[in-house]
Amino acid sequence: MIPYEHKIQYYETDQMKIVHHSNYIRWFEEARCAVLAQIGCGYDTVEARGIVSPVLSVSAEYKSMSRFGETVVIDATVSYYNGFRFNIAYTVRDKETDAVRCIGETKHCFLNTDGKIVNLRRAAPDIHEKMCSLMPEEPNA
Amino acid sequence: MIPYEHKIQYYETDQMKIVHHSNYIRWFEEARCAVLAQIGCGYDTVEARGIVSPVLSVSAEYKSMSRFGETVVIDATVSYYNGFRFNIAYTVRDKETDAVRCIGETKHCFLNTDGKIVNLRRAAPDIHEKMCSLMPEEPNA
Amino acid sequence: MIPYEHKIQYYETDQMKIVHHSNYIRWFEEARCAVLAQIGCGYDTVEARGIVSPVLSVSAEYKSMSRFGETVVIDATVSYYNGFRFNIAYTVRDKETDAVRCIGETKHCFLNTDGKIVNLRRAAPDIHEKMCSLMPEEPNA
Amino acid sequence: MIPYEHKIQYYETDQMKIVHHSNYIRWFEEARCAVLAQIGCGYDTVEARGIVSPVLSVSAEYKSMSRFGETVVIDATVSYYNGFRFNIAYTVRDKETDAVRCIGETKHCFLNTDGKIVNLRRAAPDIHEKMCSLMPEEPNA
Repeated sequence: MIPYEHKIQYYETDQMKIVHHSNYIRWFEEARCAVLAQIGCGYDTVEARGIVSPVLSVSAEYKSMSRFGETVVIDATVSYYNGFRFNIAYTVRDKETDAVRCIGETKHCFLNTDGKIVNLRRAAPDIHEKMCSLMPEEPNA
Repeated sequence: MIPYEHKIQYYETDQMKIVHHSNYIRWFEEARCAVLAQIGCGYDTVEARGIVSPVLSVSAEYKSMSRFGETVVIDATVSYYNGFRFNIAYTVRDKETDAVRCIGETKHCFLNTDGKIVNLRRAAPDIHEKMCSLMPEEPNA
Repeated sequence: MIPYEHKIQYYETDQMKIVHHSNYIRWFEEARCAVLAQIGCGYDTVEARGIVSPVLSVSAEYKSMSRFGETVVIDATVSYYNGFRFNIAYTVRDKETDAVRCIGETKHCFLNTDGKIVNLRRAAPDIHEKMCSLMPEEPNA
Repeated sequence: MIPYEHKIQYYETDQMKIVHHSNYIRWFEEARCAVLAQIGCGYDTVEARGIVSPVLSVSAEYKSMSRFGETVVIDATVSYYNGFRFNIAYTVRDKETDAVRCIGETKHCFLNTDGKIVNLRRAAPDIHEKMCSLMPEEPNA
């Protein structure tokens, strides 16, 4: 996987002169989209099949502060996937010092256009295979 | 018209300890939606008819700086409307001191779901009448 | 406590036609600032004393989807406070239907301008008293 | 100059399924920071000298719609500079089709920490020289 990089923008700072904490949640999404796109499960690919994957929950622990001009490297890995749901775990590090800025996790499900839960194994077996390939270990092993 | 008020949020500040200039463009939208909703031409009403009104252009002049904790009062008036297009002019003032923070304008058209220009006079005469009522002077006079 | 209300803005939606999940994290801040300001512990008050209260962690569970035009009512309560740190718990409900949209929590500490942890009991006893008054039960009982 | 690229993020879309217009104003800032940093006049460099360059005005004309997953290439050029003020002109193009998405301009001045107008020619002659080098033609010619 190509590590995802984000250059910190001026508009992401707040009057504490650090990055506003809500932006990390957006960076999680950036990294998630990038990692899923890399294996051919990009949001546009999946949404073109009439499937959306809303965020069920998000959590983030802020370890140190990011500032304007810095670049962060975000590691996003599928930590769970069962056909219906998946979790992604994130580590945000400063590119220069490798200091951990933030760790977090998001949980997701798959919904069709009617808002019904979708089993990817049946609805999109090719995407299911790709999701499995992202898992630390094979779920069907 | 009820004047539109916006309380400035912490996440709207930047490291200059003032409101980031991009937020005024969002406040313009807040005030525009509020003024259009007040006369029954709200975005949801219009979009329910299959008509969207994208922003064609925006301009803003920043006169003085806004800070966290302040409240701004935004005056939004239809400065032009011809059935196909409309302009809205904005004045953002500090609620306490009445100091002008920003003046601006946005230009809009009406599009149907195919992305074709719509004449509101024919496509939605009731909304057309309401838009006319917002004009400083009657366009058909 | 006056319940905190937020009218959902067009710019808060995403192409799923729902509010983007990152905005709830910003609404948490809005409600947190409002509840702290109501008891005289507003961010401006505290920052004027040279004390900031950065976010240490955030978590949110999304229960149902919010849409443009809706108004949410956000309940924010101090769920923990010990002089050094405090937690705030949030419930976001749709104003009309009372449906729960999101529940969440943020954790905070107090830092001085040197980035050192501050004991509010000593550094700002008056603010300490007010923080205690927000707690579900007295911490010193 | 290395052309500035921005990959469009999911959180930048709105329920019209296009990029919300306010994001272009932020992209202008991204490109402006990048072009100024390239010549050694980055915001951090300038702010380290106690000089800020707030936005005096912004204008944008939206020519066509951007969507999630696309990448835009932003051309930012100094269109005016006189020691006290500078303007930057922007053209945002789709990377794949070269279609113009948006053109715009921002105007800026230089202020010291007291909020007083600064003449860069005297206050920071080295940065002044660099700003001149960005101009289409030498202002002192």
